[in-house]
Amino acid sequence: MPLEDLPEPYLDRGMFFADGVYEVLRSYEGKLFALDPHMQRFSQSLAAIDIQGIDVEEVRRRVIDAYAQSGIAEAKVYFHATRGRSARNMTDTPGLKPSFFMTITELEDCSQEKDQGISVWGHPDWRWKKCHIKSLNLLANVLARRDAQRRGCSEAILFNEEEGLITEGSASSFFALLPGAGAGLTLRTSPLVANILPSVTRTYILRAANNVGLTVVENSLTCAEAAHAQELFIAMTTQDIVPVVRFEGTRIGDGRPGRLTQQLMREFRQFVG
Amino acid sequence: MPLEDLPEPYLDRGMFFADGVYEVLRSYEGKLFALDPHMQRFSQSLAAIDIQGIDVEEVRRRVIDAYAQSGIAEAKVYFHATRGRSARNMTDTPGLKPSFFMTITELEDCSQEKDQGISVWGHPDWRWKKCHIKSLNLLANVLARRDAQRRGCSEAILFNEEEGLITEGSASSFFALLPGAGAGLTLRTSPLVANILPSVTRTYILRAANNVGLTVVENSLTCAEAAHAQELFIAMTTQDIVPVVRFEGTRIGDGRPGRLTQQLMREFRQFVG
Repeated sequence: MPLEDLPEPYLDRGMFFADGVYEVLRSYEGKLFALDPHMQRFSQSLAAIDIQGIDVEEVRRRVIDAYAQSGIAEAKVYFHATRGRSARNMTDTPGLKPSFFMTITELEDCSQEKDQGISVWGHPDWRWKKCHIKSLNLLANVLARRDAQRRGCSEAILFNEEEGLITEGSASSFFALLPGAGAGLTLRTSPLVANILPSVTRTYILRAANNVGLTVVENSLTCAEAAHAQELFIAMTTQDIVPVVRFEGTRIGDGRPGRLTQQLMREFRQFVG
Repeated sequence: MPLEDLPEPYLDRGMFFADGVYEVLRSYEGKLFALDPHMQRFSQSLAAIDIQGIDVEEVRRRVIDAYAQSGIAEAKVYFHATRGRSARNMTDTPGLKPSFFMTITELEDCSQEKDQGISVWGHPDWRWKKCHIKSLNLLANVLARRDAQRRGCSEAILFNEEEGLITEGSASSFFALLPGAGAGLTLRTSPLVANILPSVTRTYILRAANNVGLTVVENSLTCAEAAHAQELFIAMTTQDIVPVVRFEGTRIGDGRPGRLTQQLMREFRQFVG
């Protein structure tokens, strides 16, 4: 058929070049959570790859309206914007109109993962160098996640090949509880640098840690350190905190969600009430 | 509207995650060029990201049939395969059927670029670490190309930030003619390593170089070396050899396509006759 008769998304630059950015947010009990920081990050992502012509305020209104219409108590809201649609040409076609796409779906039940904890496996971080931008350029994440799945794990924990330092999970932030300078445990996670996504959930976890009196150290750790941590967990928008009970086959603590991890989970619930 | 009523490509993993691979080939004067090596590379790309269920022989037949039906003498054939379609979930949904998409379009006229040469500009190589796979994960390429465009250049030449060594163009291979060990010039280009696409056109250029008695050195060069080369050119499927006459504003040679570059262009024409 002629190109011009193709249904629109076939010629989307999101498909041809991963030339777009996205957000995922969720609701708790009928209320959207952390809409503002998600919209702010979306705005930053658009600016970072210079997609113009998206009215972020209008997107915000659409999210609120569509969510209200959905009637879903525990929903996942996904949306992306791409640079637009045209016959495939890496060089920009002038005058392209960005395209926008949103879905609202019921969140999958993850109570088992949260109650019992999950297993994770390390994988070299093959991603591009601008992972602070929440873009559609996610093939390296997919390949790492597939590798973890093959090993019976729920998530891949990425580490850079040069130094062996953990950056983050394929679709999550990564946290460890380790002995610190003082008597108790400290919460370790990677600092926010160019290859780390500024996770919205991470912000709330650091706040929760502060609330329960935990010292936070933003300093990357190796897989070997992670495997010997007292407690581990990952965090992402859709499931907030998920305890990790095995790292590359090594049992963490007594193989059940850690005490401080559970305390942070309870503390996190305060924010979403 | 309900997810299940969405037109198919909206839920494609190619769009959500750049989870697919592609090929571009062309015809010269009514004949497809280098179909076999393109099909072989497509097969390798599919294997590299473990997309199963695409019959490459069937794709080959579709390309031949669709090209014959198109009746276009100088055509660009683009096709991609993705892991399939489902509601967005980075973890693989079992039983997905890969999706396939192809377009055949008239090649744009590039005689001016080939006759007069083009300007290029260097850009840090922000791509992922597996660029030997011809995947849809191309946002870094797009951003580099856009930067070059803003500088009035036709192509971005990528260099790794650690060592400043040129890898390749955003959608091309990169070649320089430089003084060698002996009397004449040698042809320099990057060796094929993990972050370089095994360009089909490159193979033909190395053969053409051999035919005209040029020594080829597969050894990366810096932007400073490139700016002081006797001759430069880029190569890609759609336009084969395109002379480069400016590198980051510095005139190459006398600012016109180099003598050896033109000789290689003539030699290349022998392959496509």
